[in-house]
Amino acid sequence: MLDLLVKNSNLATPQGNTPKIGATQGEISIENGMNIGIKDGKIAYIGRDMPEAAQMHDAEGCLVTPGLVDSHTHLVFGGFRQHELAAKLGGADYLDILAGGGGILSTVKATRAAGFDELYAKAGGFLDDMLAHGTTTVDAKSGYGLDVETELKQLEVVSKLQKEHKADVVSTFMGAHAIPPDYKQNPDDYVDLIINEMIPNVAEKNLAEYCDIFCEKGVFDAVQSRRVLEAAKNAGFGIKMHANEINNLGGAVLAAELGAISAEHLIASNEQDLEALAKAGTIAVLLPTTSFYLGKDFAPAKKMIESGIAVAIASDFNPGSSPNFNLQLSMTLGCLKYGLVPPQVLTAVTLNAACAIGRGESKGSIEIGKDADIIIWNCPDLDFLFYRFGNNQAKNVIKNGEVII
Amino acid sequence: MLDLLVKNSNLATPQGNTPKIGATQGEISIENGMNIGIKDGKIAYIGRDMPEAAQMHDAEGCLVTPGLVDSHTHLVFGGFRQHELAAKLGGADYLDILAGGGGILSTVKATRAAGFDELYAKAGGFLDDMLAHGTTTVDAKSGYGLDVETELKQLEVVSKLQKEHKADVVSTFMGAHAIPPDYKQNPDDYVDLIINEMIPNVAEKNLAEYCDIFCEKGVFDAVQSRRVLEAAKNAGFGIKMHANEINNLGGAVLAAELGAISAEHLIASNEQDLEALAKAGTIAVLLPTTSFYLGKDFAPAKKMIESGIAVAIASDFNPGSSPNFNLQLSMTLGCLKYGLVPPQVLTAVTLNAACAIGRGESKGSIEIGKDADIIIWNCPDLDFLFYRFGNNQAKNVIKNGEVII
Repeated sequence: MLDLLVKNSNLATPQGNTPKIGATQGEISIENGMNIGIKDGKIAYIGRDMPEAAQMHDAEGCLVTPGLVDSHTHLVFGGFRQHELAAKLGGADYLDILAGGGGILSTVKATRAAGFDELYAKAGGFLDDMLAHGTTTVDAKSGYGLDVETELKQLEVVSKLQKEHKADVVSTFMGAHAIPPDYKQNPDDYVDLIINEMIPNVAEKNLAEYCDIFCEKGVFDAVQSRRVLEAAKNAGFGIKMHANEINNLGGAVLAAELGAISAEHLIASNEQDLEALAKAGTIAVLLPTTSFYLGKDFAPAKKMIESGIAVAIASDFNPGSSPNFNLQLSMTLGCLKYGLVPPQVLTAVTLNAACAIGRGESKGSIEIGKDADIIIWNCPDLDFLFYRFGNNQAKNVIKNGEVII
Repeated sequence: MLDLLVKNSNLATPQGNTPKIGATQGEISIENGMNIGIKDGKIAYIGRDMPEAAQMHDAEGCLVTPGLVDSHTHLVFGGFRQHELAAKLGGADYLDILAGGGGILSTVKATRAAGFDELYAKAGGFLDDMLAHGTTTVDAKSGYGLDVETELKQLEVVSKLQKEHKADVVSTFMGAHAIPPDYKQNPDDYVDLIINEMIPNVAEKNLAEYCDIFCEKGVFDAVQSRRVLEAAKNAGFGIKMHANEINNLGGAVLAAELGAISAEHLIASNEQDLEALAKAGTIAVLLPTTSFYLGKDFAPAKKMIESGIAVAIASDFNPGSSPNFNLQLSMTLGCLKYGLVPPQVLTAVTLNAACAIGRGESKGSIEIGKDADIIIWNCPDLDFLFYRFGNNQAKNVIKNGEVII
């Protein structure tokens, strides 16, 4: 007997375990009036019959999709940076803010100062809110420590959340997020620290699955990025790269060459970059609320899909450039600013996002055998979810087979 | 004895009963640790003492502002138009959509077909959700009937909501929202119908306080707009105008000349328009989510303020061009897209918005004697409310002195 049957679902889901490109309209399955059966936290039945179940949940003809997967967040941080907005609107530029003690280094300071319990409670609260907005699986990057101790503290917070929180969390080590102030004059020494101390430590303690780096002017160049990611690969990590966000330092081509599972941002990408990413099968993780909040260009998502790249869309939740964790807003921007159609965007925040963090086998679609992470929306159909923007449309959240909201 | 004391409030509020321009940083009062007393639904005490009260509510150092005022919505309508989004993204233009039975005329059809109870329940549900997002007073325009019977039906829905719903609703008659299909060849006959039948009927039944018109190419020209608004003035209505949204037909100058309380949209406004509005004291009601959703230009809000115009910001909630009622998103756009600072935007969605619908005496600020419409936010300060965009930050809503959320 099933544990739970979700009946009368207007089901919209991608299919399969591998990233989908969906060059024209996307390739998702849409069927109204479906019943979804769950057993032991997994999807065990999809169809129009009504197999016996211990519990019944009526979706009442609402849209039902896989749980959203946020494949790029900086979940664990101390402090907030709300006053930078007012300063920016008042005419301050990035250097003014940095000189005033603001920017990423102020978050580093606050994260170093914060206790483990404080960071754990705060990040757990974000995960609660994300679940309430339909996000059931989250990538969490470190990178606000920039020293061995604090990077490990961030990753240990993630590790405890993985054990104790209902949301699923994937851990990404990103000690190479910025150059810490004390290494400003000798950044290569910091690269050595990452390679010789951080990576071995994180690997030994088994605290992360992926290693990410910010390849950008004033941060890490392509030579440094190659060194860090090769060391990470050798230590057994999957690799990712923040590439071509503002300037094109060859990051996308390098990510493709090294076999990165994903490259992130990619706003300043050219034909050669897209060709390399497509050929390597590297997933493009795009972050539209960051462009929105910073007032910058949007990544060429349509062109990427036309070039044969699988696109994921994520929130980039962080206290500086994207203080938003609601993937529904990212999805609206996926339509309005990237020009993608709803099936493409749905795939970008479910199956492709799951694949971007190595969860394509278990998440990202509603299919028999996958984890029962399911959202019932206050919407009759998929178009509506994108059209009625601005407020949370998640009605019920089923996580690992349990109706938690 | 007070009925309610809201203690430990980080209070941010404009002051006074008249619209504020706030040319540089806005002029609002910000004081932390304040206690706000309420008696008979009105604000009766503001200070640092703790006068006796029957009920105590601890704001716990959160930001406290006046209830938001949404001074421009099309609240009552039948149907939704979610499939137009997919069509637009698929390359269909406005005329394709119209030819396919879409656009405003499909909403007119659905609104004509809808029963009173259906429209009432739907609009009431929107008001519930608006309250949950911090909006306590709403302007509601008719204009999806375009015949005498349906315009009256829409206004009667508003009238019943005014009596029965906890939100405050201001009624605006907008029979001149579009040319109905049967008058396509003789639009002046429709103008005659508005003047000779609709306006007298609405006035006699006392169903609206304001009359609005859409002055735009393909809708009503300046001559027709003058005829309608003069008739409305003579019948005792306050007047408003949708002007210069796409094309500049001289609407803003006409609105100023006729003494309109507000002019709405105003994207295509020039120096002469701004000068006329400033001189007349007409409030500019700006609608950023409409620009956002349609991918159009944003109104020159900063320039308006510099020209001496009081700016209000509203949602334009409607099923076509702005299917969003969350004013918090409009506020974020007020910063990011208009370039206004938080105090200016707060004034634009409280005091100036209240003045734009004739409620400056009773709403739009937290001052002794005004209605006790108060929001407690999940934020420590005003900057945070704009910075942490993307999800609902209203924590508690006090409406006419009662803690309803």
